[in-house]
Order: sequence, then structure tokens, then C-alpha cells
Amino acid sequence: TTKKVLMLPGDGIGPEVMRQVQRVMDWMAKKRNVNFEITEGLIGGASIDAHNNPLTDETLADAMAADAVLLGAVGGPKWDNLPFDIKPERGLLKIRKEMGLFANLRPALVFDALVGASTLKEDIVKGLDIMILRELTGGIYFGQPRGIEERDGVRFGFNTLVYSEPEVERIARVAFDMAMKRNKRLCSVDKANVLESTVLWREVVERVAKDFPEVEVSHMYVDNASMQLVRNPKQFDVMVTTNMFGDILSDCAAMLTGSLGMLPSASLGAADASGARKALYEPVHGSAPDIAGQDIANPLATILSFAMMLRYSFDMGDDATMIETAVQNVLKGGLRTADIMQPGMAKVSTTVMGESLINE
Amino acid sequence: TTKKVLMLPGDGIGPEVMRQVQRVMDWMAKKRNVNFEITEGLIGGASIDAHNNPLTDETLADAMAADAVLLGAVGGPKWDNLPFDIKPERGLLKIRKEMGLFANLRPALVFDALVGASTLKEDIVKGLDIMILRELTGGIYFGQPRGIEERDGVRFGFNTLVYSEPEVERIARVAFDMAMKRNKRLCSVDKANVLESTVLWREVVERVAKDFPEVEVSHMYVDNASMQLVRNPKQFDVMVTTNMFGDILSDCAAMLTGSLGMLPSASLGAADASGARKALYEPVHGSAPDIAGQDIANPLATILSFAMMLRYSFDMGDDATMIETAVQNVLKGGLRTADIMQPGMAKVSTTVMGESLINE
Ligand SMILES: CC(C)[C@H](C(=O)O)[C@@H](O)C(=O)O
Ligand SMILES: CC(C)[C@H](C(=O)O)[C@@H](O)C(=O)O
Repeated sequence: TTKKVLMLPGDGIGPEVMRQVQRVMDWMAKKRNVNFEITEGLIGGASIDAHNNPLTDETLADAMAADAVLLGAVGGPKWDNLPFDIKPERGLLKIRKEMGLFANLRPALVFDALVGASTLKEDIVKGLDIMILRELTGGIYFGQPRGIEERDGVRFGFNTLVYSEPEVERIARVAFDMAMKRNKRLCSVDKANVLESTVLWREVVERVAKDFPEVEVSHMYVDNASMQLVRNPKQFDVMVTTNMFGDILSDCAAMLTGSLGMLPSASLGAADASGARKALYEPVHGSAPDIAGQDIANPLATILSFAMMLRYSFDMGDDATMIETAVQNVLKGGLRTADIMQPGMAKVSTTVMGESLINE
Repeated sequence: TTKKVLMLPGDGIGPEVMRQVQRVMDWMAKKRNVNFEITEGLIGGASIDAHNNPLTDETLADAMAADAVLLGAVGGPKWDNLPFDIKPERGLLKIRKEMGLFANLRPALVFDALVGASTLKEDIVKGLDIMILRELTGGIYFGQPRGIEERDGVRFGFNTLVYSEPEVERIARVAFDMAMKRNKRLCSVDKANVLESTVLWREVVERVAKDFPEVEVSHMYVDNASMQLVRNPKQFDVMVTTNMFGDILSDCAAMLTGSLGMLPSASLGAADASGARKALYEPVHGSAPDIAGQDIANPLATILSFAMMLRYSFDMGDDATMIETAVQNVLKGGLRTADIMQPGMAKVSTTVMGESLINE
């Protein structure tokens, strides 16, 4: 069967890292007989430049029609001073919301070969392997009412943090499923001592927990979680949290690894009757406009995002593992892009890294 | 003149660390001729046990009448399962709000003698000295409407993140003043690419910046800030942010130092006509119920909170520095409480640490 993939290279280094994924896909089409039907589209700044809109209805329709979407990165200084409503970020938020991608999977993984890249001591991060599950279509990112208004001559800015029981329940179920496939430990992060919205969150997680008696559940306040990630990150297996807390904690966890250029992510929707889910995959790193176009960016996070696509959208776990192993091996072989360069290693370009991965 | 201090030991290790401060105060009364008038009160679990209320009107009145309040710590498993409305935390939130303590100063400081206690590599944290300024009486902690409600058969939990211009302006002014007294660099942390409330925040900070042309201002999204704290914390001098982001980031920054038992904090109100401000000082660490009553807790964070009191409430900067230097010297001398114990050092009790500090 044909696998319809929409590629959205986006801005900055997006297009060049995407090109390396394209080569991996070509290789898979030839050598593994996988039939990809690839469409390309614009998002973020690239789409603003072409259409004055960070995400057109046409691209959105393509995304809805695709089996999976692969995104590069969006944003850059060129579009930073645009008004709030038409910034590149709006495109990203809109595609997440419209596709219903409520479950954001953000692994924080330390590759053995790169343990030295972390700012943390080796014994604290060696072997680190956390999966952070961030709720992605609710919470304060999308809550109404929101805006800036004047009342009695004073201007106020306001946003609404809101979660319904079904919203919490569906992300909790994904989290417990994930924990069952991993080490059966789930930590739910909230601020239930201050925020009623997360009192409800905790309540629902507790209820869902009853359906997963094998999973050891804990609850942690978000301030403590940010401490514990720094103090002893290996205490965690799966973490699940709100959109805003997940934004902050997953970036913190990503940085613990010291190699942001290596981290993929997946954003999944609900399964339909046939078991298929809408899905978007993207590297955790940004568009890095300062190094764009120089063929020095690290393509591995995007390639690993593609591996997640194989695993979660196409049930091709073995092929995903093959790519992940190839990444490990390329690193073991001593190849490094500039961002993860270490003394004694061989510094290579984006293109050479892609090529070496394919040879591997 | 008499300095009226209200002591609120609170729960867990609160009372025993407070006792050591009391000794320092006695010493100052005798040797430095400072006239403290000390009252004691209950807060948190201790107050719930006595009055079924985490903060009585009487204690609040005492706090309002005091020149400064020193708090130990609140909370513990004993009160964890109480309903949201009467938990120990409510007492803390209420005293902050009623006293108008909008400016929370949270230094993250690495003591040379303790640099090894950090989970981060020595070169990343040696000499670290950040001041995080957290807005403390607004934002999502106090915004209305809030609660849990049922609409059309579905339960929702909701909170409101709201900031008015004057609220942002007053915390921004404190931040710029602070930056002027330090290294003249201020980083304001927001999520202005997603939250309108922080679009306003950024706008106001930009406007206040015009009155402080010597301060170099930057703006950072909160997710990036949590990364940058881990990647290279020494890039920061003063950081200013909202109540919720400040809760998360200041705890993350505190943990970077590896010695939570060493960190003080101050919460300040607006200056009145005479220049006096309401103020509350407390250690960053919690009530640590697991080690309470064993005379092993570290009293230094509370003693350093008292030093902040001398500096910010009583204009006794020299005496504050004297205490801070004594703390450095005691550490250099090799004394350690259990929480900061290192090989080759002498492990001492809470009481001995207090005594040694006074001798110093
Ligand atoms: C660009 C921004 C809107 C986005 C977010 O906050 O979700 C980004 O930080 C992310 O984590 O993917
Ligand atoms: C106990 C809790 C309500 C409090 C807060 O969230 O402000 C604490 O975490 C703190 O930072 O002082």
C-alpha cells in the first residue's frame, strides 16, 4: 500500500535537513520496497512569504489527506516582528489543533557516544531515556477567553487554562499505554496545590490508573518536576503533563541530553475506526536561521523523527529500529556535525552525515 | 529603633532551623545592639492543627503589623489529603496576597565550597550568581474565574492567567532596579508567541526599559529559558517573569546549584510613603517532614533569609554581608550538614552548624 507523506520543510535549516530524510526515504523505496507518495508544502515563514499566511487551507487539506506529515522547523528573525496573529508559530499551532494532534511524544534520550555533550555529569545522564507526553491541543494554548482589553482605563492581558475530563482522559490513556510498553512507571505532572484545572487533571489520571494496575503512578508538582529533572532525571520513565508545562519540561529534559540536534518528536491524533491516526513528526530543535543554508546542520533529529513515523504511523517498528541503530553506529564511527562535535571526532556536513547514515 | 519581626516556623524542619536564626538574632541584639521585638505565630499545617485554618486573621494581623516576617516552611503528608481550600499552601498564598508581596527574589548562587554538589559540571556552574525575580501576587495563581464546573454533562477545570499593565510595571521596575545594582543585564521571560497575557508583559517591560537605558534587556520564551538554564546558566544576571513561570524556573535554577539547603528568598511589597515595604523571608527548601525533629536539617538557607531581611527591610547591608561571609567561612572550614555532606568534610547537626556560624 502507498504511504502518503506530506513534507513541510518550513524555515531556516528545515529544507536542508529534510533533504537528507528524503534520501533515506528514497533508499527505503528502492531497498525495502516501501511505496511513499510524497507531497511538499509550505508552512511558517516560507508560507508567509508566499501567501501572507503561515498555514494555507490548501496545505492544511493536504495534511488532513496525508497518512503522516513530516515537518522541518518554523520561524526566524525575519518574521519575529509580525503581529501575533500572523507569526510563523500560528501555522504550527493551527496544524496541531486542526489535525487534532493531542498527544505530543518527546523522548529525551542520551546516546552513549554523546554523553559528554551534556552539561550534566556523566553518571547523572548516562543511559537517560525518558518519554515526555505533552498534551498538545488544549490547556492555556487554546483556552477561551483570551486577549488584551482595557477596563476602566487599565489594560489587561488574559488567557484561560482549561481542561475537560475527556481531554485529560485521552492523553492519560496514551500515557498509560506508553508506560505499559516501557518500564511501567508513569509520573503525572501538575500544580494541583494551586490550579483547580490540574486538580481535575490529577483526579482523571487517578481514575484512568485503575485500568492499568501494573503501572506505578506518581504525581509531582511542576516546580518539583523541574528540580527533579536536574537532580536525578533517571528516576523518570514516562511523564505526562499539560500543554504549557510540557513545553517547558520537555525542553529542559531535551537540554539535559546536551544534544538537541538529535531529538525527534511525534504528535498524534486519536485512532479512527480502522486504527489509523493523524500524525505529525518534527525534530525538537528550531529553525536555527544563523546556520541555515551552510550545510552544517544536524539532520539526525529529523531522520529520527522519520523513524518515529515508521513506528507510530506505519507499524514498521523494525525499520524504525534499523534507522535508530544506524544513527548509533554512525556516531560510534566518530562522525559528528558541528553541533555535537567533540575532540578527536570527524566533523562532517549535513550532506555527508545523511550519506553516511544511508551507507550504514 | 525597635525592629518588629514575626517568626512563623511552620511545619517539618521549620521550627528547628528557625531556632538557629533566633540564636543569630540574640547574638546581634547583644553584640551589635540591634533591638529585635520578636513575635511568634502559626502557619500551614501547624495552624490547621491548632485552628483548622492554615492562616488565621490574628496571625495575618501580626504579619501586617510587623516590620518583617520570617517563615520556616509549610506542608507535609499529614495535610496532603485535605481539600484544596484548607491545605497548608493556602496559608502561604493568602499571606503573600494579603501583604501585597508582589516581588519574589530568588537568588541562585553557587558557593565555591559546594560547587561539587551540583549535578552539573563544575565549569558550567562555578561562580553562578543569578537573581530570579518572580511576580508573586498575580497571574494564574490568583486569576478569576477559576474552579471546576460541569457544562452539558462534561466536567471542566479552569484557571485564568491575567496581568494588568500596572502589575507588570511594578515588578519590571523592581527588576530593573535590581539589575542596576548588579551587572545591568535583565532577561524577561514570557511566552509572547502563544499567550496574549505575556504579549502585554513584554510590551510593558519594553516600555519600562526606556527609563533604564544602562540596562541591557533581553526577552526569552519560557521553554528556551528552561533550556538555557541547563545549557549555560551563567549567561544570566537578573531574570524577571510571571508567577507560574517563576515558580518553575526558580526551582530549576535552585537545583542547578545542587545545594537547595543553602538558598534564601525574599518576598517584598510596594514601598510606602516612608520607604518601608512589607516583607517576608523564607528558605527555598520545603518542610522536609522525613528529617524533621532529628537535628540534621541545614539551617543556613533560613539564616541567609534572615540576612536578606537585614539587607532589604532594615538597610543593614553590612550586617547581611557579615552573615553571608560567616556562612562562606563555615563552609570553607569543612563543616557540612547531611544534605551538603561531601567526602573529607565534617558532618554536623543543625545545632552545631548554628553554633559554628555564631562563633565565626
Ligand atoms: C513555537 C511554539 C509555538 C511551540 C510551542 O510552544 O508549542 C514550540 O515551542 C514547541 O514546543 O513546539
Ligand atoms: C507551596 C506552593 C503554593 C508555592 C508556590 O507555588 O508558590 C511554592 O512552590 C513556592 O514556590 O513557594
